[in-house]
Amino acid sequence: MDFNIIRVARVTMNVTDLHAAKDFYVNALGFIETESTSEYMALRGLEEHVHHSLLLRKAEKPGVHALGYKVWDESELEKLEHFFQIKGARTLWLEKGTQPGVGRALRAVDVSGIPVEFFAEMDSAERCLQKYDLYRGARVQRIDHVNCMVPDVEGAVTFYTEQLGFRVSEYTATEEDRTWAAWLHRKPTVHDVAFMNGEGPRLHHVGFWLSDPMSLIHCCDVMASMGYADHIERGPGRHGLSNAFFLYVRDPDGNRIELYNGDYLTSDPDFKPVKWSINDPRRQTFWGHKAPESWFNEAAAFLDIETGIEVALKQPLLAQRKPDFVT
Amino acid sequence: MDFNIIRVARVTMNVTDLHAAKDFYVNALGFIETESTSEYMALRGLEEHVHHSLLLRKAEKPGVHALGYKVWDESELEKLEHFFQIKGARTLWLEKGTQPGVGRALRAVDVSGIPVEFFAEMDSAERCLQKYDLYRGARVQRIDHVNCMVPDVEGAVTFYTEQLGFRVSEYTATEEDRTWAAWLHRKPTVHDVAFMNGEGPRLHHVGFWLSDPMSLIHCCDVMASMGYADHIERGPGRHGLSNAFFLYVRDPDGNRIELYNGDYLTSDPDFKPVKWSINDPRRQTFWGHKAPESWFNEAAAFLDIETGIEVALKQPLLAQRKPDFVT
Amino acid sequence: MDFNIIRVARVTMNVTDLHAAKDFYVNALGFIETESTSEYMALRGLEEHVHHSLLLRKAEKPGVHALGYKVWDESELEKLEHFFQIKGARTLWLEKGTQPGVGRALRAVDVSGIPVEFFAEMDSAERCLQKYDLYRGARVQRIDHVNCMVPDVEGAVTFYTEQLGFRVSEYTATEEDRTWAAWLHRKPTVHDVAFMNGEGPRLHHVGFWLSDPMSLIHCCDVMASMGYADHIERGPGRHGLSNAFFLYVRDPDGNRIELYNGDYLTSDPDFKPVKWSINDPRRQTFWGHKAPESWFNEAAAFLDIETGIEVALKQPLLAQRKPDFVT
Amino acid sequence: MDFNIIRVARVTMNVTDLHAAKDFYVNALGFIETESTSEYMALRGLEEHVHHSLLLRKAEKPGVHALGYKVWDESELEKLEHFFQIKGARTLWLEKGTQPGVGRALRAVDVSGIPVEFFAEMDSAERCLQKYDLYRGARVQRIDHVNCMVPDVEGAVTFYTEQLGFRVSEYTATEEDRTWAAWLHRKPTVHDVAFMNGEGPRLHHVGFWLSDPMSLIHCCDVMASMGYADHIERGPGRHGLSNAFFLYVRDPDGNRIELYNGDYLTSDPDFKPVKWSINDPRRQTFWGHKAPESWFNEAAAFLDIETGIEVALKQPLLAQRKPDFVT
Ligand SMILES: [Ca+2]
Ligand SMILES: [Fe+2]
Ligand SMILES: [Fe+2]
Ligand SMILES: [Fe+2]
Ligand SMILES: [Fe+2]
Repeated sequence: MDFNIIRVARVTMNVTDLHAAKDFYVNALGFIETESTSEYMALRGLEEHVHHSLLLRKAEKPGVHALGYKVWDESELEKLEHFFQIKGARTLWLEKGTQPGVGRALRAVDVSGIPVEFFAEMDSAERCLQKYDLYRGARVQRIDHVNCMVPDVEGAVTFYTEQLGFRVSEYTATEEDRTWAAWLHRKPTVHDVAFMNGEGPRLHHVGFWLSDPMSLIHCCDVMASMGYADHIERGPGRHGLSNAFFLYVRDPDGNRIELYNGDYLTSDPDFKPVKWSINDPRRQTFWGHKAPESWFNEAAAFLDIETGIEVALKQPLLAQRKPDFVT
Repeated sequence: MDFNIIRVARVTMNVTDLHAAKDFYVNALGFIETESTSEYMALRGLEEHVHHSLLLRKAEKPGVHALGYKVWDESELEKLEHFFQIKGARTLWLEKGTQPGVGRALRAVDVSGIPVEFFAEMDSAERCLQKYDLYRGARVQRIDHVNCMVPDVEGAVTFYTEQLGFRVSEYTATEEDRTWAAWLHRKPTVHDVAFMNGEGPRLHHVGFWLSDPMSLIHCCDVMASMGYADHIERGPGRHGLSNAFFLYVRDPDGNRIELYNGDYLTSDPDFKPVKWSINDPRRQTFWGHKAPESWFNEAAAFLDIETGIEVALKQPLLAQRKPDFVT
Repeated sequence: MDFNIIRVARVTMNVTDLHAAKDFYVNALGFIETESTSEYMALRGLEEHVHHSLLLRKAEKPGVHALGYKVWDESELEKLEHFFQIKGARTLWLEKGTQPGVGRALRAVDVSGIPVEFFAEMDSAERCLQKYDLYRGARVQRIDHVNCMVPDVEGAVTFYTEQLGFRVSEYTATEEDRTWAAWLHRKPTVHDVAFMNGEGPRLHHVGFWLSDPMSLIHCCDVMASMGYADHIERGPGRHGLSNAFFLYVRDPDGNRIELYNGDYLTSDPDFKPVKWSINDPRRQTFWGHKAPESWFNEAAAFLDIETGIEVALKQPLLAQRKPDFVT
Repeated sequence: MDFNIIRVARVTMNVTDLHAAKDFYVNALGFIETESTSEYMALRGLEEHVHHSLLLRKAEKPGVHALGYKVWDESELEKLEHFFQIKGARTLWLEKGTQPGVGRALRAVDVSGIPVEFFAEMDSAERCLQKYDLYRGARVQRIDHVNCMVPDVEGAVTFYTEQLGFRVSEYTATEEDRTWAAWLHRKPTVHDVAFMNGEGPRLHHVGFWLSDPMSLIHCCDVMASMGYADHIERGPGRHGLSNAFFLYVRDPDGNRIELYNGDYLTSDPDFKPVKWSINDPRRQTFWGHKAPESWFNEAAAFLDIETGIEVALKQPLLAQRKPDFVT
């Protein structure tokens, strides 16, 4: 099959306090608030011309509803429903109007148990790219990728590449040449989604793209000025893998956001995936820094597409090491 | 028809002195030299994993041989030959080995008289993205786009969008709503190629992508230190159109190179092209600066794909104004 | 004599509309507003721990009241009064409370007819250096220097160096080895004050120091976003002289402000002043750009310390050329 | 007494391998090599107009010969000799020609047992500030400060402020209001020298000033590219104290160098020293990061001015805590 999936385009997840979330995402990170109610807040980056890339839902506890991919047009949705049904995967239609700003959407459970979502239509919104007087904090430009811990990375990679048409840009191999982690893309950047070996499925982080390295440094300063210093979990640093200049921050509910800049164009079909040995010290942090324990161990639960209950976790197939390869 | 063209990927043009060119492109701008002979020099950007994106040929006088587009695979070349023949356009095969580092290539004359080239294969080369100790000058990362002056912009846009599958990201319209200039892309950036109303066909410039704004500022300083201050023609500045942070420089033969950073993702099929009025002062230079006369008037001749003689120029269809919309 | 003058520390000048000035200085340039009334607005930079470095007074028309220098302590003021009286220069005491935030001040007319002011005491104010969430626009850090057009540069230099204890860091010499312009300092930067040959005395600009080059680029973007593109007069660029990365902007009344970053330490007594030939093209603009006519011709009137009437202008001693050496 | 000390201006210390040192300091950090022999290497920053600010001597093992301060003129040296002799401190004259590039110098032992040196004259050298094509790595501009661990901080502060005329810009106080660490300056930056409570006297690091934050980020990338990732000890980060954007690196012999940018002007006599509580988490690292153990525990030995033997260490007066206040 051949699905025309454009890119990862939105994430829907819970926060327990929308006011606290607004201060963090809008004032400290620099998202634009498209729309807010007592139930949710829709956020977009400065260059995004659509309703949102991050939808925060008010809830009792954190949890991730779905990772959303934009497809070329509505006809792709039917093809995807058919595909998931053949695979025996559960699916669910969310008709237009069910979600703020989003057209008809297909939810499905992927091979790792992750709730994914496909949609073709989203309301447009003013692009604020050239409203520089609105730039704040990290000046978040757009959603770039999601990163998930899954028990079976090789199974996930096969599913996304052979079935859904993703391509691998970089990967980490164990000494036995097993794929320990992989970065997969539809749009020609290093990734739309990454998988790494670990207890899962869990969402490790959502990555947003920044226009330049100094915006990341400024974000650290702004966060510290606002009292969010202890929400800076890791970085700034450079990943060997992907070459990204990165910063990992935690929102008031512990959801992890990566601020990200510095990867490269992966458009060419003959681009050979970059292989990293799990023992290469520069893979994870080019500059040699260690990541804190929280970064290795903590990740967010996914919620079942029908019941909303947390998806059960499985232990990873490969022996656990510090998954120090995430970007 | 439906061609799988990936991106603009290489330009072949003349210089009169390869030593002078090397000092300019390698020492001042920061290109990596893949290979040089007495006849040519092949240059690539720091993130490029292929033989070259700029091939400079030693010749008596300047001139542009072809604008080269990478396609998905060899089968696209046959389809493109067929298409151009149906259109009555001349084509020419350059078998593998004819050009340094490049596989079999199809040359053809586009609707504006521009020599274009399609190829699927290029030798690989070491990607120097993480060899930061090699970074010099502007730290050129990769080819981004070409910009051409043509007599009939609307004809060119129709040809590239309806026949070759390009999409328009931004355009400038006259008071009579004629398309004065347009930016077209295959890869999801603002452009692979731009056309603007003017005596042509001529190549206005080749644009290369930089990783960050400070590299552009540093390049100005390095150029001035090396005695190339009078080779800085325009900028640094911000284009309203495309949002690019730009610098235009002229090589020792007058070939114009744009150093470019700051555009945005154009992957979505429902992205609406941005329309600029020709009278909007922020379109050309967001900060309000004027461009010098040379920038409006000077451009490089294309060479016939068979004879190598300069392609004859035609006057533009639309009344001439300062084409102050180029990015 | 030996005066302990610390640095240029404040400028008092007129604007015709305090609301328009606030939008420009606070929202676009990023000054902190210490205090405002219907009569004046006191502004300081982010790192300044004192009441203001720029005092804008509401008036019918523009005009500059005084260039203010901070001295070590009150005893210097008496010494300076004595000195100016011996020189036959007019002086005027402004007792504490006369000016907002400033202690007792001595006004005097310098050798060029410029109203200068000396004071030892200013109210303290919160330093906002680490309130990064307040950073806006150019993120102005502190006052750096003033630049004046005077008819007799050599006379001014002699007065400031031999009488007031300033030192020359850089200067421009004509072909006949006359001093065409000079940069003088008390604090160990390139200058607190510069003089250049021209009809005068007039204030050419007040320079404020920025912490980094990207703040200057961001200021251009913010100004353009806010509709101030036509208030960007010159730059961004690099001065050969002083090595400053500069931007010249005009406030709503035409007062010229320089945003400035990149000079060097001049603390050493054996530092030899850098001499530039008036014919060296890199002196003015290291990158080779030309400055606009307005920048050469327009400057602000000084006001008499007693009458408040504009100080009469004199023609320059040296034949007029474009004073393309200002930083 | 009243000594006209200009600034900290040079450090002389040992390395065991001059070739290894050259690769590190010149190629990775971007120092300019003024002169090298088999015995020593003299290094200067890009803006320095003098022979060196760092003199590396070939030796069997590391060790610091002296921290060198530039004084106004030769007459200060005699005054200083007299002062130290009155204090009962040992002194030693190094006549002109004894040290490369340096005029007559007075060595003395300060109150903490640190070998200090005073000199008025140094050979001039070409300033490379505007030779941007020579910029490499961190693009080190100039020496900024030295930082020492001493057993009695309050004694050191009294000696430097009351006897030598330094001023305190910032300091850390314990809960009992004892001075735990202090930053002292002669030139109007945050410091020329800092003292912190610890086993000593030892040299913790030498700080060099960079022109902008991006040079520091680039240095991390260059160091990693060259295989020096494990020589990056701490940072990049922001100190609350001094506001510096910092990076600590270790040379091949373990000597610690700080790359530093972002402090502020301290020229005003009424500037009130900034007091930090030892319990304020933002004091040390504004962004909340922890420093590694090595950074707390390791520092370099000073060598006796006469015997060259390592100066004996004393335990600190104040109870040891992690000295997490160093900048
Ligand atoms: Ca920067
Ligand atoms: Fe990531
Ligand atoms: Fe362009
Ligand atoms: Fe200036
Ligand atoms: Fe330090």
